[in-house]
Amino acid sequence: MGKIENRLKELGITLPRPPVPPPTRRNAVLVGEVLYLAGTTGAIIDPFGKEIGPIRGKLGRELSIEDGQRSARYATIKHLAMIKEAVGDLDKVVQIIRVIGYVNAAPGFQQAPQVLNGTSELLLSVFGEAGRHARAALYQHEMTNDAPIEIEMMVHVKA
Amino acid sequence: MGKIENRLKELGITLPRPPVPPPTRRNAVLVGEVLYLAGTTGAIIDPFGKEIGPIRGKLGRELSIEDGQRSARYATIKHLAMIKEAVGDLDKVVQIIRVIGYVNAAPGFQQAPQVLNGTSELLLSVFGEAGRHARAALYQHEMTNDAPIEIEMMVHVKA
Amino acid sequence: MGKIENRLKELGITLPRPPVPPPTRRNAVLVGEVLYLAGTTGAIIDPFGKEIGPIRGKLGRELSIEDGQRSARYATIKHLAMIKEAVGDLDKVVQIIRVIGYVNAAPGFQQAPQVLNGTSELLLSVFGEAGRHARAALYQHEMTNDAPIEIEMMVHVKA
Repeated sequence: MGKIENRLKELGITLPRPPVPPPTRRNAVLVGEVLYLAGTTGAIIDPFGKEIGPIRGKLGRELSIEDGQRSARYATIKHLAMIKEAVGDLDKVVQIIRVIGYVNAAPGFQQAPQVLNGTSELLLSVFGEAGRHARAALYQHEMTNDAPIEIEMMVHVKA
Repeated sequence: MGKIENRLKELGITLPRPPVPPPTRRNAVLVGEVLYLAGTTGAIIDPFGKEIGPIRGKLGRELSIEDGQRSARYATIKHLAMIKEAVGDLDKVVQIIRVIGYVNAAPGFQQAPQVLNGTSELLLSVFGEAGRHARAALYQHEMTNDAPIEIEMMVHVKA
Repeated sequence: MGKIENRLKELGITLPRPPVPPPTRRNAVLVGEVLYLAGTTGAIIDPFGKEIGPIRGKLGRELSIEDGQRSARYATIKHLAMIKEAVGDLDKVVQIIRVIGYVNAAPGFQQAPQVLNGTSELLLSVFGEAGRHARAALYQHEMTNDAPIEIEMMVHVKA
């Protein structure tokens, strides 16, 4: 087992199956050493990687910041599964480059950075220095399936 | 005539003139083998590439999903014209990497993925496997000129 | 003093200290010759680079287009400081690739392109041809700290 998968095990995280994209799309595209990942929303998956039901709604209305962080964490775990699917081994991750996180926000909600710390802290915890990324924390008034967050990453990987 | 332009002809698509950017900007910037395209909204152009008038408004209010798909398709055709302008020949496209699509959504509208299938299906139809991309389907509460959609792409091209 | 820093001096611009990111994040990540910068909002900094207080609110409600342009200009100056921090010398900038600008918009406000000209015109003025970029002008209904704008760049730099 690789170093990063070991680390995931220590953290009690089991990777889910990556989502199955429709025929028009891919979960990830690799160009040189940059892996571009599709946007992924934060449904709830259990520690064994099974989706146990969606968490839905807007931050600042139905959902607390903790709910949002949990959703961000799940979307990140899905992204890890997509990275593994694309390059075969999470030990190939050189650096998480860029994370864009979109928060489903009720009017007046302005704490996307706190919500997306669910993603940022998990990445640091899993990859250490290689998990420290450039981030943008953004807002949407609606989201597909009323998901609380959507994230999208670019990752530097070994060729 | 190149293979892709032939395919466009089969599909009844004539490329419009690419938009003329103001002096501060470019339609596309190439770095190595990655072409970064400017965001483009989906005005209506006829099959001969002429703009025949804007389609305007929000999905979930004035516009149906079919209207949105039509708009997504037009924005994609504009992007093809911008790619050709930048690299000279659409046969140089190795892979559509990433498509970000923003939908102008009335409150409660959550079907951006269906709307953006107007883009994704056209890309598959034009480029085959090379058209399968990583996508994020996003939402905005407003859009320049009340356009129904805006898209933005990154494309892997031959050096 | 480098050519670009000289140009900044001519323009009366002093770079502020770059923001200090939390331990989970970075201001910028370099992969090959592409520098990816974190999203940055447009607080007000004085000509000596000191933040003299935030400009807050929504375009189309509290703020005029001129306010928004000023905010865009400040966010851009912050980005320049982040680029310098990352690569040591602004003369290493080969090309501003891509600028994504998000405008904090009241319902009905659709002039993000004009607001973001605050960024685009500054980049042209500082870098000349190398400052001409691909851009997307986007909208948000909320923004962290009620900032009027947020921008995010990718920059081609010398290795």
